[in-house]
Amino acid sequence: MKLFAPLAIAALAAAVASPASAQFQKPEDAVKYRQSALFVMAQHFGRIGAMANGRVPFDAKVATENAEIVADMAKLPWAGFAPGTDKVGNTKAKGEIWTEQAKFKESADKLQAESVKLVAAAKTNNLDNLKAAFQSTAGTCKACHDAYRNQ
Amino acid sequence: MKLFAPLAIAALAAAVASPASAQFQKPEDAVKYRQSALFVMAQHFGRIGAMANGRVPFDAKVATENAEIVADMAKLPWAGFAPGTDKVGNTKAKGEIWTEQAKFKESADKLQAESVKLVAAAKTNNLDNLKAAFQSTAGTCKACHDAYRNQ
Repeated sequence: MKLFAPLAIAALAAAVASPASAQFQKPEDAVKYRQSALFVMAQHFGRIGAMANGRVPFDAKVATENAEIVADMAKLPWAGFAPGTDKVGNTKAKGEIWTEQAKFKESADKLQAESVKLVAAAKTNNLDNLKAAFQSTAGTCKACHDAYRNQ
Repeated sequence: MKLFAPLAIAALAAAVASPASAQFQKPEDAVKYRQSALFVMAQHFGRIGAMANGRVPFDAKVATENAEIVADMAKLPWAGFAPGTDKVGNTKAKGEIWTEQAKFKESADKLQAESVKLVAAAKTNNLDNLKAAFQSTAGTCKACHDAYRNQ
């Protein structure tokens, strides 16, 4: 059995290091999951953008509701970038996501931090605060897309 | 202008009755939004099912985390069933959703209520409670799918 021990240890290490991959029945589900979570988030973020950019009237209550959904959704997509899901299905995800995991995680964490600030900004009932937080959050989206998403 | 007044009133009434339709830039976005939200919800609900059905070990903390996401997601899809989105894109949604709006809303409300109970059940750290709440929530999913989703 000794010959197989390194393999068993590697398998165990992989399972411990990336329990996310075990959460999806197949890699395609992980891809669909992350795309779905990002799409829902983008819809709600877009509604805040419409207020920040003056396309629709500012409403702090509506902005807060949308920001809270953005903050909730911002926690989700990352589990979907599980090992083995880099070349599955119809994806724009760049390979760097899997070769620069620490940096990618940093971007994911930054979005989550920004989205919490977005909620706080919406709650101040001050459009300038919302605009600033929206711009800052949008910058986080863009930086991550530039680095990790094919056009 | 008098001739157009009824139309204007109808348009206003529609806007007031269904602000959701105004939330999406195009009907296809509404369809993708509701499908995305339901898919994310189903993934997390499935993880609770795996515990309830004994396929993975029961872990109250993990069950609670997943149930909380289910409860959050359960609020979202309904806005995507906006007027004018019944025959758009690749959808399994039955026309009855739009002709039985009150009954459909009742189903949507029921799922939200059940998902709140699911969170409470997960928090009790008792697998039998989780099983019961999972079965009850799953029954709500099924009843709504039977009535409003094409196979």
